Amino acid sequence: MEYELLNKLAEVLEERKQADPDSSYVASLHSRGEDTILKKIGEESAELIIAGKTRDRQAVVHETADLWFHSLVLLSSLDLGPNDVLLELDRRFGQSGVDEKASRK
Amino acid sequence: MEYELLNKLAEVLEERKQADPDSSYVASLHSRGEDTILKKIGEESAELIIAGKTRDRQAVVHETADLWFHSLVLLSSLDLGPNDVLLELDRRFGQSGVDEKASRK
Amino acid sequence: MEYELLNKLAEVLEERKQADPDSSYVASLHSRGEDTILKKIGEESAELIIAGKTRDRQAVVHETADLWFHSLVLLSSLDLGPNDVLLELDRRFGQSGVDEKASRK
Amino acid sequence: MEYELLNKLAEVLEERKQADPDSSYVASLHSRGEDTILKKIGEESAELIIAGKTRDRQAVVHETADLWFHSLVLLSSLDLGPNDVLLELDRRFGQSGVDEKASRK
Repeated sequence: MEYELLNKLAEVLEERKQADPDSSYVASLHSRGEDTILKKIGEESAELIIAGKTRDRQAVVHETADLWFHSLVLLSSLDLGPNDVLLELDRRFGQSGVDEKASRK
Repeated sequence: MEYELLNKLAEVLEERKQADPDSSYVASLHSRGEDTILKKIGEESAELIIAGKTRDRQAVVHETADLWFHSLVLLSSLDLGPNDVLLELDRRFGQSGVDEKASRK
Repeated sequence: MEYELLNKLAEVLEERKQADPDSSYVASLHSRGEDTILKKIGEESAELIIAGKTRDRQAVVHETADLWFHSLVLLSSLDLGPNDVLLELDRRFGQSGVDEKASRK
Repeated sequence: MEYELLNKLAEVLEERKQADPDSSYVASLHSRGEDTILKKIGEESAELIIAGKTRDRQAVVHETADLWFHSLVLLSSLDLGPNDVLLELDRRFGQSGVDEKASRK
């Protein structure tokens, strides 16, 4: 499911860059400028911390989805996509095992 | 790739909950308590905002990976996983199209 | 100036706790609950990071004022005030000098 | 107290810009670059949100002091000081009363 979903989502985000800001939330983020996208990441991160602190599982899922969604919009604004992030996770993850900790900065 | 990666990552995160905090970064996060995980989400979010502001594509990929990774650790601490988030994205995403904006809070 | 300003501000914030949420921004924050105040701190912090990154001095002043203001609202919600924070700064600050760094966690 | 404290703190922060990074925490922040200061603001903000969420009054005072302190370091890095922020608060505050809400963005 993830493969199709994340890539399909990335494709739609790409299309929306050119959409009418009045009809597309994603287009409105791009049209208002990159700072707007970055502010959303700050907001959603704060909301995730609050949800995590209350241990509200439904809210944690909801806020993580919001945070990932806006991360994907940021990636898209730089012509990047979810696969770039997954490859980075894989790069670190492939060497995990015993040396997971050592590879951390 | 994503399917295997995110789910494989989630499986390993699950195993690491019980690992020795001295040998596993993930185990050390859990042993230091949930606030430590939440602080990491705040930190990585700030680093992503900074990377995004400089439009440093490599740093954006790196910091997004850090942010997603620590989100996955938080999910794991609540016995949740990436599929819960992907299902939430799909739930919103399935109704996107013309009404994407209307479904936003 | 600071003495009068911060304390006068704190007094007004205290009065506003009981005000009509429709006529007072501060009262509306309290009526919407503590999470709303905490989210604002996350938002204003993200905006300050963005302003700092662009080295926009006017925006930095503006966003710092927003961040301090919402910190004061949070303090007020816990029956605390600016003097509690200033005393804490003084406590650390009095021992600054050569051992400033050593006293850091 | 505030008048002396904030201005005295600002003076010391100014002096520390030129200090040896090995002996001064403030100098080490400046020497590591502005991003380090901005990351600290993100970190301290997350810690304040966590402290506020637990309603731990002592922790809220502590984290607010940390957040204000690093805001002052950021201001100092741009040759600004606490009075710039207090003047901005006063500018908004002087027109508070009935029109407090209307003056918000």
